[in-house]
Amino acid sequence: MKIGLLGHGVVGSGVRQIIDEGATWEVRELEVVKILVKDESELTDPRCTLDFNDILNDPEISIVAECMGGLEPAHTFAKKALEKGKHVVTSNKKMLATFCMDLFETAVKSGVTVHYEASCGGGIPWMASLDRTRRVDDIEGFRGIFNGTTNYILDRMKKEGTDFSEMLSEAQKLGYAERDPSDDIDGYDVRYKVALSCVKAFDTLVNIDDITTFGIRNIRKEDLDWCAANGMTCKLIGSGKHFDGFVSACVIPTFLRGDDIFSNIPSNFNIIESQSKTLGAAAFVGQGAGSLPTAHAVVQNIVDIWKNQDPEINDKFAKPVDNQVHKGTFYIRTAKQAGFADLIDRRVGELAFITKKISLVEAAAACAAANDESLFIAEVAE
Amino acid sequence: MKIGLLGHGVVGSGVRQIIDEGATWEVRELEVVKILVKDESELTDPRCTLDFNDILNDPEISIVAECMGGLEPAHTFAKKALEKGKHVVTSNKKMLATFCMDLFETAVKSGVTVHYEASCGGGIPWMASLDRTRRVDDIEGFRGIFNGTTNYILDRMKKEGTDFSEMLSEAQKLGYAERDPSDDIDGYDVRYKVALSCVKAFDTLVNIDDITTFGIRNIRKEDLDWCAANGMTCKLIGSGKHFDGFVSACVIPTFLRGDDIFSNIPSNFNIIESQSKTLGAAAFVGQGAGSLPTAHAVVQNIVDIWKNQDPEINDKFAKPVDNQVHKGTFYIRTAKQAGFADLIDRRVGELAFITKKISLVEAAAACAAANDESLFIAEVAE
Repeated sequence: MKIGLLGHGVVGSGVRQIIDEGATWEVRELEVVKILVKDESELTDPRCTLDFNDILNDPEISIVAECMGGLEPAHTFAKKALEKGKHVVTSNKKMLATFCMDLFETAVKSGVTVHYEASCGGGIPWMASLDRTRRVDDIEGFRGIFNGTTNYILDRMKKEGTDFSEMLSEAQKLGYAERDPSDDIDGYDVRYKVALSCVKAFDTLVNIDDITTFGIRNIRKEDLDWCAANGMTCKLIGSGKHFDGFVSACVIPTFLRGDDIFSNIPSNFNIIESQSKTLGAAAFVGQGAGSLPTAHAVVQNIVDIWKNQDPEINDKFAKPVDNQVHKGTFYIRTAKQAGFADLIDRRVGELAFITKKISLVEAAAACAAANDESLFIAEVAE
Repeated sequence: MKIGLLGHGVVGSGVRQIIDEGATWEVRELEVVKILVKDESELTDPRCTLDFNDILNDPEISIVAECMGGLEPAHTFAKKALEKGKHVVTSNKKMLATFCMDLFETAVKSGVTVHYEASCGGGIPWMASLDRTRRVDDIEGFRGIFNGTTNYILDRMKKEGTDFSEMLSEAQKLGYAERDPSDDIDGYDVRYKVALSCVKAFDTLVNIDDITTFGIRNIRKEDLDWCAANGMTCKLIGSGKHFDGFVSACVIPTFLRGDDIFSNIPSNFNIIESQSKTLGAAAFVGQGAGSLPTAHAVVQNIVDIWKNQDPEINDKFAKPVDNQVHKGTFYIRTAKQAGFADLIDRRVGELAFITKKISLVEAAAACAAANDESLFIAEVAE
């Protein structure tokens, strides 16, 4: 089975390496025949090309593996490949989450498929396990610590009592956080992963902007002190639940009880858990990133296509996100409290309070209205 | 696809329920047509029978799901079913680990398969993930906290500073531990799971008696005190590694460093981790037991057979266990120290010492020679 590879960076070169080395008989059935690279400095292999059309117009290539990153031209190339009747495997969560409606629709029209195991959890076989679980159970919901960078920061802040900015610099020094860390600390990285988990778990396409998203940019030592004093641990949680006709989905810092397995996941580890009727809670732990683990996930998807074990044939439906059903109590710290009067259950600090049990929609609306750039909100687990 | 069910207890009734309810189109292709029960009081369903031959001689039944537990007659019934050309799915780790050579050989002769996902980790998709990983990687090794009962006891002992016997009674009261707890606390339950993980991960059949096995029956507060004072946590670990021509495999209490994710797994949770070249460490967390999760795993295997996604066609080879390659330092507490003189690196208590770096074979031989019924040994992680 012949593969065209888009991108030859961290993930792409790992895919090429795994397939070239061919450790198993399945992988030895695969062949990377062309590799799209960015510029002439990358023309390190006779298979490299600078022209996407070399791949698009090669009738022998039946799978395009997109490992470029970024929105464009990744999206356009993926779409053209699908239109040309080639399967697409992608590790690019941002691109696929942003254009999922367009790409899945194009794939259905062309009778091919989009695979994206590597886009969420890297080497953690989260998506593959959802496929397997769904053979026997409907997935009711999922939750996860989907982002290693923020988990590293929160874990260190808790253990060392340091403040956010100090730990962010530390994470940047260690290479865990990007120089522009907003995708991580504002929760957007998790939002993409929640959107793609909704596709895989529920066959549901959502508009990513509708996923209520709060990050940890404004967290302070005093917030974690209150959390710890109450026997809880703060984690950035992405979650989704499936209902008739809609889903609820959000990203929000959450104060978890000490006996919750999630509160024990340290450092830059990820954990993702599905909930279904007969399997119950099934959780996967890993570091969720890295060149070869992510490349491994891309190759697994290529093997899926080759073996024709294709779970992506299910129809997918666009459904709205509605977080009215998401009820909880929230810890909010803000200097601009005028709009919160009716929501407050009790005060827990000079500027912080715990809300009554309200919906996430109410909480988010009040936070938006407060217009406080340093506001911090976390959900308090029951 | 028609299924004969052996046993209608905790797991068997769950299998019947999941298939009867048919939540997915895959499951609706399955049908339980006969159920073997123990006695007349269990004849609660028109499909129930007291005679195994009703199932064996029904030509429509192509899969026998063994959920009886115990060695016999489970083993004989499974073997007869295989000889008759029926696939066997089993949740019975003790039976399969004990008779694996016999049963896999019989299956190969008859051109059918033995599936056993539910036998190890219950609902944790550990075995399924090994199959998937092996499409791209060879599995180099695995390790796990495979037993919830002992993890519960060790976790409570650590957190509350209590002694072993107190926590064992508590676990028995909660229904986590059996009245005769030796399978759990002496490590045999883990040994069965290690043996079956060797089959799945390495295609290797081992003699279970060759798996070096130490339990936690003799652990004392003073052992855990030393462990905690050195920043470590004690867990009962089962592990296996694959080498040319042999495997190493053992069950042993292990003092893990605080930054090891395993040391953070609380209560009665399990965690199992595979190690392979490109995926790296992939870990699965769950409670590893319960009626419906275990039944779910049985049904998944039935779907595997129905979909003809059968990873069990690989030849399996009997290989010896050799723990000479397993080198480490060990914490040993014993009043009978005569035979240990050459092995001791330093003393860490009146009766306790840390060994030099030695092989597990040396450590086990010295412990056996000491003939001390209250000896406690743990490996100390590097």
